[in-house]
Amino acid sequence: MSLSIDSSSQVLENGYEHAELLSGNNDEHEGVMVNMEKPMDSKVFLTALRASISLWRKQGKRGVWIKLPIGLANLIETAVKEGFHYHHAEPDYLMLVHWISESTTSTIPANATHRVGIGAIVMNDQRELLVVQEKSGKLKGTGIWKIPTGVVDAGEDIFKAAVREVKEETNIDTEFVEILGFRQTHKSFFEKSDLFFLCMMRPLSFDVQKQELEIDAAKVILH
Amino acid sequence: MSLSIDSSSQVLENGYEHAELLSGNNDEHEGVMVNMEKPMDSKVFLTALRASISLWRKQGKRGVWIKLPIGLANLIETAVKEGFHYHHAEPDYLMLVHWISESTTSTIPANATHRVGIGAIVMNDQRELLVVQEKSGKLKGTGIWKIPTGVVDAGEDIFKAAVREVKEETNIDTEFVEILGFRQTHKSFFEKSDLFFLCMMRPLSFDVQKQELEIDAAKVILH
Repeated sequence: MSLSIDSSSQVLENGYEHAELLSGNNDEHEGVMVNMEKPMDSKVFLTALRASISLWRKQGKRGVWIKLPIGLANLIETAVKEGFHYHHAEPDYLMLVHWISESTTSTIPANATHRVGIGAIVMNDQRELLVVQEKSGKLKGTGIWKIPTGVVDAGEDIFKAAVREVKEETNIDTEFVEILGFRQTHKSFFEKSDLFFLCMMRPLSFDVQKQELEIDAAKVILH
Repeated sequence: MSLSIDSSSQVLENGYEHAELLSGNNDEHEGVMVNMEKPMDSKVFLTALRASISLWRKQGKRGVWIKLPIGLANLIETAVKEGFHYHHAEPDYLMLVHWISESTTSTIPANATHRVGIGAIVMNDQRELLVVQEKSGKLKGTGIWKIPTGVVDAGEDIFKAAVREVKEETNIDTEFVEILGFRQTHKSFFEKSDLFFLCMMRPLSFDVQKQELEIDAAKVILH
């Protein structure tokens, strides 16, 4: 009973007597994660957001995260005006964050910083090497032969990406042997860094077929 | 002269005779990059966006990128309703993208997928090892001693991150010797993957001082 009175008077002080509160989950770092799922009018959202932040501050919360599906893009401007900034975005949602603690410095972790690529050296016992010509990008039309390369997908292991890329580009099945080395470069793609792993692969099949969309030609050459 | 007549009749056909066009830069992949910088009313933006996309389609453009600074959050909903989705976001801007080509499949490259971390084995000639206790996170209050670890900043080299983290946490200067190994994990942080590099470091100074914000204690132990 006293808890309920405290709680409503707490809200009253800030003038949000009847305000709906946003529901959030606590995280391990004195943070709150709000997962917005249903459509909401931006004015209703503004009132609920202000009342919720006021309450979270009193509860000692420090960071507030709001995950907005792309269908709720109408709420972004409101969140930004209330002090939120962007943390990261994927095709179908935007993650905003706001450090609401006035007594501590922000410890909001950074967004992902790297893309990861692979290059595949596919060599058989006769020391023959698998090479391709690219249809687009810088090497388009140059006639340059190169090893298959590609980008590691989200959630994909490096060695699996190497197997997948060789298969996609040339239809050759391979098994991963080892990583020969890697290289880090910066500002390679929208300010992001790039980690490129050179993988040694053993071919399991020998029927080279180029992939039409990306690859102009594929063949096996003597090393 | 004929170019100018063609151009205006082309716009007329679509009913955007007097529409302002968005100015974009062409990229190497038949794409257009629009860098919105000045505030714009969302209705003006909608008209300009539709007219521009109509023109870009006729020009054979395939992907359209729009970079919106956080101050222009009022335009996001309009872009989304016109078919754009999010590509990535940094604290102060959102990047949207829309594949406008109706005859080809999207080749929009993926967003960054990885965070990169380091662990530092700092060992001197007496085989003494530098260890710390953490003030927050899972190990808080456990009394567990561990090697210094941290996240590689955007645009930072792995070996420099190792030197920086050891200095920040313990005030010890080190030089990077080699990478002993690395590990890839998935879904470690907002669906992103993690690459963790274990670095061998040689200490250059020996005055251990813990960093107050993150570190509870730091010391050198016998290995």
